[in-house]
Amino acid sequence: MTSFLEEHAAEVAAASNRIRPHIRRTQSLTTDLDRDLRLKPECFQVTGSFKTRGAFNAVLSLMERERPRGVIAVSSGNHAQAVALAARSVGVPALILIPEDANPTKVAATRALGAEVMQEGITFANREARLREVMAERGFTLVHPFDDWAVIHGHGTAAVELLEDAPDLDVIATPVGGGGLLSGTAIAARSRRPSVKVVGVEPEQADDAYRTWRSGSIQTLPSSPTTLADGVRATAIGKRNFEVMVTNGLIDEIVTVTEEEIAEGLRVAWTRLRLALEPTGALPLAAYIAGKLPAGTKGLILSGGNANFETVARLLTP
Amino acid sequence: MTSFLEEHAAEVAAASNRIRPHIRRTQSLTTDLDRDLRLKPECFQVTGSFKTRGAFNAVLSLMERERPRGVIAVSSGNHAQAVALAARSVGVPALILIPEDANPTKVAATRALGAEVMQEGITFANREARLREVMAERGFTLVHPFDDWAVIHGHGTAAVELLEDAPDLDVIATPVGGGGLLSGTAIAARSRRPSVKVVGVEPEQADDAYRTWRSGSIQTLPSSPTTLADGVRATAIGKRNFEVMVTNGLIDEIVTVTEEEIAEGLRVAWTRLRLALEPTGALPLAAYIAGKLPAGTKGLILSGGNANFETVARLLTP
Repeated sequence: MTSFLEEHAAEVAAASNRIRPHIRRTQSLTTDLDRDLRLKPECFQVTGSFKTRGAFNAVLSLMERERPRGVIAVSSGNHAQAVALAARSVGVPALILIPEDANPTKVAATRALGAEVMQEGITFANREARLREVMAERGFTLVHPFDDWAVIHGHGTAAVELLEDAPDLDVIATPVGGGGLLSGTAIAARSRRPSVKVVGVEPEQADDAYRTWRSGSIQTLPSSPTTLADGVRATAIGKRNFEVMVTNGLIDEIVTVTEEEIAEGLRVAWTRLRLALEPTGALPLAAYIAGKLPAGTKGLILSGGNANFETVARLLTP
Repeated sequence: MTSFLEEHAAEVAAASNRIRPHIRRTQSLTTDLDRDLRLKPECFQVTGSFKTRGAFNAVLSLMERERPRGVIAVSSGNHAQAVALAARSVGVPALILIPEDANPTKVAATRALGAEVMQEGITFANREARLREVMAERGFTLVHPFDDWAVIHGHGTAAVELLEDAPDLDVIATPVGGGGLLSGTAIAARSRRPSVKVVGVEPEQADDAYRTWRSGSIQTLPSSPTTLADGVRATAIGKRNFEVMVTNGLIDEIVTVTEEEIAEGLRVAWTRLRLALEPTGALPLAAYIAGKLPAGTKGLILSGGNANFETVARLLTP
């Protein structure tokens, strides 16, 4: 009988092979800051974030079964571009639902990757309901941003590469929003190196994952938080992510960081590490600088670099 | 009989071995911008610039002959930190002459690396004269920022690594100021791949290397230019650099870029490549974006990342 961890670890290994021709193997970096630190700069990933790992694994897995009529996603950020690119690469239509008040630059980037974008009448509140309606109308297949096994397995490939580069890490930290990256990382890391501590980093303002992990049941935020880290604004983690993180106990800890700590992480990234990260991508660094990570050698998965430059400039200039 | 190129290429190979324990092998990057582009991000090098390559090769070469009393350098920028670190690594004193009006942050960074900094009464105009006096007083050995064979050979190691990562490049472009990086690159690249075109990129405001290459004799700027690219403010290339670049014809071209083109290169680096470069480090990118580089696959040596964030913020926000 194979265990939960073995079964999912095999899927992560399959995902690595499946997505290899389509994504970039980002090289881990060492820095002058601390010799015990390894950075996994997913800001250099295709489309500028790790989201292409999960999106490609999901779309390519669908194709192996039966060619979908099209794929659909709800996102105003990195997942939108990732799904658009993955769909275009295999030649299936992509429809992305983006709330009306989203950043026009991100909408344009998603369209530039060949996706159809639907915005009219879509709000953060009604988007799930609209999604069900549109899926029924079109017969398109959903690619969920985190509560989807193929997405989780795809996201786990970043930790596989990080441990290839640095097999002796004591700690691996990732941002946590819906839990896709953190649960994929936990599967990949704990199966390859059982002693490694896997830590999720979350804004204090959006501490649902922290409270979920502490309480042992899924906790939901009353509304989408306004944190600087706009990539982790999901109001609750997914069921599959909960199964990995809590039911199977594959993560060690979730730590929270304040907005000032996120800003400091971003400052260090841009001025000392020379990495132009987005605030969400700097979450693990923020926790490291604040001294909130466990002892030992640390690998930080810096999830993306699609920053709003004006926000960064405001934070970094006196 | 070994040729000029063979002899110096052997010295570059020796430099690679000599400095390996002390520097970082920066991994070249591919990008979504253009599949025919390879970036050599020396912003991730120890101290944030390629300058440590030449400084370590110079200081370690001195140690192989006879332990110097100390080393001395004149610099307000990346060379200062590189020499300070190299000297500290081998345990010899370093004295750095920095003009009085230099950026206090860079002075502090140099002191933090254990160097003695001399600023009193030192100006851009009198610094060479002061240098001779202090060298005579102390008996310290000069590490010149570019007109020094050991420095040139050390700087050539970046191109060795770039061609290991991407052996089929048609073009390699570097910034050019005093010519240290460009002449080292020319030796390394042309000896390993005779067909590769080696191109220097210089601000239009500081076009002495361009005019030197066109005229066949060393041209000098009347004063230090005020270009954004403050790492290439040398008023003339060195004699040894001239010997490589012009006398032996090892470079193919020098192209100049306007201040607006440098700013655009910086914008693309920070917002699309997610590399927090300094303006000088973005010179090859500026030339690429302006369509000024020869056809084919291109390797860009992005020399450093010690940017003044306020300058960058001013350039990048509307």
